[in-house]
Amino acid sequence: MKEKKLWGGRFDAPPSSLMIRIGESISFDKELYAHDIEGSISHSRMLKRIGILSESEQRKIETGLGQIKKEIDSGKFEFKIENEDIHMSVESRLTELLGDLGKKLHTGRSRNDQVSQDVRLYIKSEVESILVLLADLLLAWIGKAEAHTKTIIPGYTHLQIAQPIRASHYFLSHFWANVRDFEDFLGAYERADELVLGSGALAGVNYATDREFLRKDLSLSRISENSMDAVSQRDHIFKFLFAASQFMIHVSRFCEEIILYTSQEFSYFKLPDHLTTGSSIMPQKKNPDVAELIRGKSGRVVGSLTHLLVMVKGTPLSYNRDFQEDKLPLFDTVKQIKLSIEGIRDMVEGIQVFPENAIRSLRSGFSTATDLADWLVSAKGIPFRSAHEIVGELVKHCSSKGYDLFTIPSGERGQIHAVLTDPGYEAAISLETSCDKKDVMGGTSLPRQKEQIKRAKAKVNELTKKLKSIESKGKK
Amino acid sequence: MKEKKLWGGRFDAPPSSLMIRIGESISFDKELYAHDIEGSISHSRMLKRIGILSESEQRKIETGLGQIKKEIDSGKFEFKIENEDIHMSVESRLTELLGDLGKKLHTGRSRNDQVSQDVRLYIKSEVESILVLLADLLLAWIGKAEAHTKTIIPGYTHLQIAQPIRASHYFLSHFWANVRDFEDFLGAYERADELVLGSGALAGVNYATDREFLRKDLSLSRISENSMDAVSQRDHIFKFLFAASQFMIHVSRFCEEIILYTSQEFSYFKLPDHLTTGSSIMPQKKNPDVAELIRGKSGRVVGSLTHLLVMVKGTPLSYNRDFQEDKLPLFDTVKQIKLSIEGIRDMVEGIQVFPENAIRSLRSGFSTATDLADWLVSAKGIPFRSAHEIVGELVKHCSSKGYDLFTIPSGERGQIHAVLTDPGYEAAISLETSCDKKDVMGGTSLPRQKEQIKRAKAKVNELTKKLKSIESKGKK
Amino acid sequence: MKEKKLWGGRFDAPPSSLMIRIGESISFDKELYAHDIEGSISHSRMLKRIGILSESEQRKIETGLGQIKKEIDSGKFEFKIENEDIHMSVESRLTELLGDLGKKLHTGRSRNDQVSQDVRLYIKSEVESILVLLADLLLAWIGKAEAHTKTIIPGYTHLQIAQPIRASHYFLSHFWANVRDFEDFLGAYERADELVLGSGALAGVNYATDREFLRKDLSLSRISENSMDAVSQRDHIFKFLFAASQFMIHVSRFCEEIILYTSQEFSYFKLPDHLTTGSSIMPQKKNPDVAELIRGKSGRVVGSLTHLLVMVKGTPLSYNRDFQEDKLPLFDTVKQIKLSIEGIRDMVEGIQVFPENAIRSLRSGFSTATDLADWLVSAKGIPFRSAHEIVGELVKHCSSKGYDLFTIPSGERGQIHAVLTDPGYEAAISLETSCDKKDVMGGTSLPRQKEQIKRAKAKVNELTKKLKSIESKGKK
Amino acid sequence: MKEKKLWGGRFDAPPSSLMIRIGESISFDKELYAHDIEGSISHSRMLKRIGILSESEQRKIETGLGQIKKEIDSGKFEFKIENEDIHMSVESRLTELLGDLGKKLHTGRSRNDQVSQDVRLYIKSEVESILVLLADLLLAWIGKAEAHTKTIIPGYTHLQIAQPIRASHYFLSHFWANVRDFEDFLGAYERADELVLGSGALAGVNYATDREFLRKDLSLSRISENSMDAVSQRDHIFKFLFAASQFMIHVSRFCEEIILYTSQEFSYFKLPDHLTTGSSIMPQKKNPDVAELIRGKSGRVVGSLTHLLVMVKGTPLSYNRDFQEDKLPLFDTVKQIKLSIEGIRDMVEGIQVFPENAIRSLRSGFSTATDLADWLVSAKGIPFRSAHEIVGELVKHCSSKGYDLFTIPSGERGQIHAVLTDPGYEAAISLETSCDKKDVMGGTSLPRQKEQIKRAKAKVNELTKKLKSIESKGKK
Repeated sequence: MKEKKLWGGRFDAPPSSLMIRIGESISFDKELYAHDIEGSISHSRMLKRIGILSESEQRKIETGLGQIKKEIDSGKFEFKIENEDIHMSVESRLTELLGDLGKKLHTGRSRNDQVSQDVRLYIKSEVESILVLLADLLLAWIGKAEAHTKTIIPGYTHLQIAQPIRASHYFLSHFWANVRDFEDFLGAYERADELVLGSGALAGVNYATDREFLRKDLSLSRISENSMDAVSQRDHIFKFLFAASQFMIHVSRFCEEIILYTSQEFSYFKLPDHLTTGSSIMPQKKNPDVAELIRGKSGRVVGSLTHLLVMVKGTPLSYNRDFQEDKLPLFDTVKQIKLSIEGIRDMVEGIQVFPENAIRSLRSGFSTATDLADWLVSAKGIPFRSAHEIVGELVKHCSSKGYDLFTIPSGERGQIHAVLTDPGYEAAISLETSCDKKDVMGGTSLPRQKEQIKRAKAKVNELTKKLKSIESKGKK
Repeated sequence: MKEKKLWGGRFDAPPSSLMIRIGESISFDKELYAHDIEGSISHSRMLKRIGILSESEQRKIETGLGQIKKEIDSGKFEFKIENEDIHMSVESRLTELLGDLGKKLHTGRSRNDQVSQDVRLYIKSEVESILVLLADLLLAWIGKAEAHTKTIIPGYTHLQIAQPIRASHYFLSHFWANVRDFEDFLGAYERADELVLGSGALAGVNYATDREFLRKDLSLSRISENSMDAVSQRDHIFKFLFAASQFMIHVSRFCEEIILYTSQEFSYFKLPDHLTTGSSIMPQKKNPDVAELIRGKSGRVVGSLTHLLVMVKGTPLSYNRDFQEDKLPLFDTVKQIKLSIEGIRDMVEGIQVFPENAIRSLRSGFSTATDLADWLVSAKGIPFRSAHEIVGELVKHCSSKGYDLFTIPSGERGQIHAVLTDPGYEAAISLETSCDKKDVMGGTSLPRQKEQIKRAKAKVNELTKKLKSIESKGKK
Repeated sequence: MKEKKLWGGRFDAPPSSLMIRIGESISFDKELYAHDIEGSISHSRMLKRIGILSESEQRKIETGLGQIKKEIDSGKFEFKIENEDIHMSVESRLTELLGDLGKKLHTGRSRNDQVSQDVRLYIKSEVESILVLLADLLLAWIGKAEAHTKTIIPGYTHLQIAQPIRASHYFLSHFWANVRDFEDFLGAYERADELVLGSGALAGVNYATDREFLRKDLSLSRISENSMDAVSQRDHIFKFLFAASQFMIHVSRFCEEIILYTSQEFSYFKLPDHLTTGSSIMPQKKNPDVAELIRGKSGRVVGSLTHLLVMVKGTPLSYNRDFQEDKLPLFDTVKQIKLSIEGIRDMVEGIQVFPENAIRSLRSGFSTATDLADWLVSAKGIPFRSAHEIVGELVKHCSSKGYDLFTIPSGERGQIHAVLTDPGYEAAISLETSCDKKDVMGGTSLPRQKEQIKRAKAKVNELTKKLKSIESKGKK
Repeated sequence: MKEKKLWGGRFDAPPSSLMIRIGESISFDKELYAHDIEGSISHSRMLKRIGILSESEQRKIETGLGQIKKEIDSGKFEFKIENEDIHMSVESRLTELLGDLGKKLHTGRSRNDQVSQDVRLYIKSEVESILVLLADLLLAWIGKAEAHTKTIIPGYTHLQIAQPIRASHYFLSHFWANVRDFEDFLGAYERADELVLGSGALAGVNYATDREFLRKDLSLSRISENSMDAVSQRDHIFKFLFAASQFMIHVSRFCEEIILYTSQEFSYFKLPDHLTTGSSIMPQKKNPDVAELIRGKSGRVVGSLTHLLVMVKGTPLSYNRDFQEDKLPLFDTVKQIKLSIEGIRDMVEGIQVFPENAIRSLRSGFSTATDLADWLVSAKGIPFRSAHEIVGELVKHCSSKGYDLFTIPSGERGQIHAVLTDPGYEAAISLETSCDKKDVMGGTSLPRQKEQIKRAKAKVNELTKKLKSIESKGKK
């Protein structure tokens, strides 16, 4: 057995073929290489500081690790399944380069605290990228809203046309959901922003590890308080997967709307050609594939959250081998989130709005019926519930005769109720007026829309500042 | 049609029996009654302020609502399925009491913003109760830890005995997980702490609703920025269900440990009689039912999170009737979380530890083998990986002969490697020494345990302050 | 301790208040009462047969159980939380009625095999009801299809209009999905159709229990082969919850279509008034609430499947108290499935189709573009991919000029390609012809639709026969 | 635009970089290549049969496809992201080889029916492999059971020692769960065993496709009845993922037991070295990694089921691009199931049982207390519930004094109740007798165990026959 396992002292027989195939993680955890090496460099500096490595030993190790990073960066590094995971792969190469000195690096460390640290560094770095993309998306929403404060489209409840709204209002509604996503991804960042090295296998280490030195060297905000907790729990991944699931559910709704509004029947929105595909057999189709793919990916990300919750459920402390696969849902979700943010942003930027089609719907959908009822209340003193019933009768009459509120002749209106022939009727059903009467904070009137755009910009500024402070810290 | 629906104007036929059975929510959303009435009282005050209700009208409405609350409190209120939901039930009773004036309360409001507000008030109030219980649980962990800084038990990885740890260390590891739960429930509270009244059906309202007045009157921290977003999204429930799921996964692990450690084979822990049950057929059984029930409830709560995520996925804005059932997973989860915290706390407080059984395991489990290896490195200058192999051989020899590290004769040790006959051997394998060598922040040495208990107390103080500030705000 | 627990011999202290609240299941498992009593009656007959009860003892027990059933049927039975579960409640009442003889009933039985049997009887009986409802729904689909073989509506891919289809084809596509649901519910029935009594707590019983007698007396098909397996696994519930989840996902898609097709923009379908509701504030709305509620319930049922999978994961054999709550997702799902089938059936029966609106979409959606391309291939000898490109150009030209394939003048067509001025053009784009060219098994041509209706009827006959054979067996 | 998309006729701009990255599936759906080519060959034969291809054209196509298969088999085929998916990749290469003739292959086919067919062929072929592995596992359970009819181990409820059972009984309990898994995987096979080619994009095809010819040529059992249903639903994947999830939940329980029983505290079982690993830092550990990894994989597979359910929820018929990723959870689950079956089988075969440790537990766990109570009933005429209480007192006394039922002196027994000094006492508490009194079908007595092994063998024969009939059909 040439390639004797590092932990093999006690064993008579080498692992079986099944054991190797089911046990390896190098095929996926190599994604952590940069963070594993980053952590190892800090660890070697700390070992020098506490006298376990000499200055020259440390220098050799740091140089060796730097070289290994370059080898992996450039694709020249050969990953071997016998080295099982990224930690073993790096250490084994280091020992090739430096001989026994390479083995000394593992002093005062266990794979349990090492992998937990690597994943936290990975989450920090990936969430930072995600926040950059999200900030960009937030600006895209604002840009679209600014261009469409005067565009009126239908607001729906139950997918029935309910009230006219300004398109800016619609775009900003998704903006605010994504603001909460930004905050929750930030929360995942903060959860991960912790030093766990020094926790050892579970109980701490038999060395005078200087954790405060490590914390600073790795630009982390906190030191974990309890070594068992540090190696046992996966809350940093949970929190990321939850933020990701919530984001995907949010955008699954926007995607649904894109699919609806670009359908032949709605036709309010059109996507640019480069975001759609045709059918191999039906030349007239212009399919909103990006929207569909992202809507579908919401299942993929929720599935990943489920994966991790089920995996951890009912396992005793501390580390269990089950946890080896905690990285799979994490890595895949990072990729899906980045692709999805990019896709949403491209769609938001690329949407062309067709206001005339929106207005056709608003008219045929009796969208200002409520306003008419409110006018009966406020201008004519009719009790709300009665006004509601009068308008109900009017709509029913229109429906059966093929009218809308704009086209029904005054005479026929009078048959429902005399008040409907009042000259104020036309103003009461105007789409613009309807919008502008919603002049309450958060409402759809033009001044409120302008106010909301300002507030949205202020919010983005606030979030961007937080992002900058993270970025500057990361760079040190 | 005697019981004409409020929204019935347009319809020829009354809802079918199926429609009534599938559509009603009063059987479950009556849970919201106190919050619905609280919101309605504030709404009536605001309507007075902006001149829609006179002072005496408002007074009558507030008195009427107060009376209805008492009727429901005392169980005398008759809920009718025809009133569909809690909002209709209260309004309908108010109209019974006050005539047409009762109907005026709904001015400038929709069930869409009303229910969204009710649920946010409910979450705030229930999370407050949950945080009180959690703070209590946190104290229970500390109490147990303080009593057991000198008790040594096995620390496990892979459910194999790994290293001796102090029991305080073990109890505090769960403490820190629950601290994060506290913070995440607090996050759910803050997400819900928002005024959404004034959003109307989706676009705002046609009245000069004073939202800032409402915000203050309802002791809320923020005003929602966008009316569509306010009635469309369910992030406040998502965030609560996530915090709840994470908590349940955490405690499912502690429950697993209780079940293990109270088994005949482990016998480190014993639960008091009042937390266990017997078997109807096997008189010797003492079943850890509370631990099992809570472990099982983790599935129930994760199922509720899944319920809501699937429910919202792919629905277009704004309100859809699908969302009517968003309250079911929320209400059930609130109950399960409260029961579970109480159950965990009672178990933590009631656990009796049997250190002699723990030590039996530690000895037979070769728990200080690592320490022996480390001693070979530090005192004898043997390279770590070689030391590891020597100890591996020793363990293998012991296993095959029925020894443990404490009972193997020096002579047989010498056959493995001469260094093992060194007089330092005994000290190297001592359980206490093993613990105390982990003298790193977060580690299991006695001084570190005392330090960690102090830090835990400081953390509870910090969290309790946050809780107090919430409570005082709630009381106004 | 007045209310001494049956299993209380060993204990010093009574269960705590928490233990009672968290441990009781009587608040929900009373749903099993009829099946519990049915099982107990058979058990008493078997005990008589093997000489443990005398004939008169058995008669008294059967009479007592019959009386208890009537008390519960009529709502007069008082359930007490101290009796914990349905089994204890019935036994305790029987002992009130018969004294010590009541206690003898539990000989040779454990709550572990008893509850497992009760749930299987419950599933059998509820699935039977579900299959009756499903058979009804299958007939509704066929009825609707028969009425609409000549109605042409758009077929969608990506929610883009793809090809004209006959409405019968559309309705039958859901029919076949529900046929598979029928088969999978039947599979759940068969999984549950097993005698497990005689398994005892886990290892079998110390009595000469005649399991074959019990099997016949309870009209079950099989006897469980292994007592541990019988009390430990929950596959019968899994299988039911999976069939239920799959059904709900199927109908969530039909509900989505109802919501789309009844929107103002599509307007192909209209639901009868008794299946819709209005808005409290917007009188013109006619909301497809039943469709939305059922779409939302898909989350509820998938959440229940998740609940059970998570609950059972990682628990060791045999019975664990976690399983007490296995009944909650089951009972709730049974109710949701019944309501949902009824709701879907009412909608299918009540849909009014508006073919003129469907045809408007088909024309504006270039739905016969593929047919035109195929005609270029078959009649004009143009290679398929080139034909595809010519038609692509034509569609693009129409789109930009506001034409459809029916309204674009021949001259403009000629500018794209001379062949498009051919007199065969009109026939090539006809909606009916397009349908009728799909004259392949399973296709949308009129003769194929008639064939498919026949085959659907034959399928219902086949399934109804299976259902009848179940029903007759159930009645004995 | 050199690489013009096949469907690009209508579009001004090429797809964006994002569109290409988010839209491609070739990175994963190449897994379908053999099935895609198999389907294409049958399709070409059918096209010849109905006169669309000449004999020599068909021959060239079949030869070309055969060559492409070899290129992919051998790793020489170059997959290009521009070809998006496996269908395009194969067709594009065919066109390279054969010129325009290559394009003719797609006549009368759409990617919608093509991919649906490919996946069904894939499921059939993979389930066949899974069933072969499962049959092997079933034999391993029987083998282990046969070797251990005389080994007595504890049976647990609530992880408390309940009753002695024969180890064969334990092993066979998992056998029967896996029998149901076999049946459910078979059900997934049958669901997939259907011809869907000829369904076109959704409505059927404009050619006289001979579907019965295709069915036979592809060895399928049925022809799909409705073309929309055939391209729209994913029940064949659902059913597979459910069978897979149920299997993983079953084996997560066995893995939990392996982990428990190989712990130092239980020590009933030992795994061979080649199925375990050591720790990098703790030389004495022998970690049951395979069991842990498989237990963890249960989360992965349940996550995949969730992925697909969420993905399909609420999407309208027929094909939507969301479905492109339906293959990811399927492919990954196939791999995990195969690895897991192999891992379970290796563990079952490799388990070494240590009966003396099991018996130590049985004695200290009062495992025959129930038998003692039953003996008081049957031999001494004491009512069951009273007997139960006497034994409860006895156990309590033993516990407090450190006795077990075998070691408590007769005199102290007499203080509890005179009857406990009866000479029958010893026989009443014997472990073997306890087992052999469970002489009921499915029970743990020795004759019943032998009977059950016979029945298990008969069951495997029955299942193997079904498997053989599938295999012979597959080979044609």
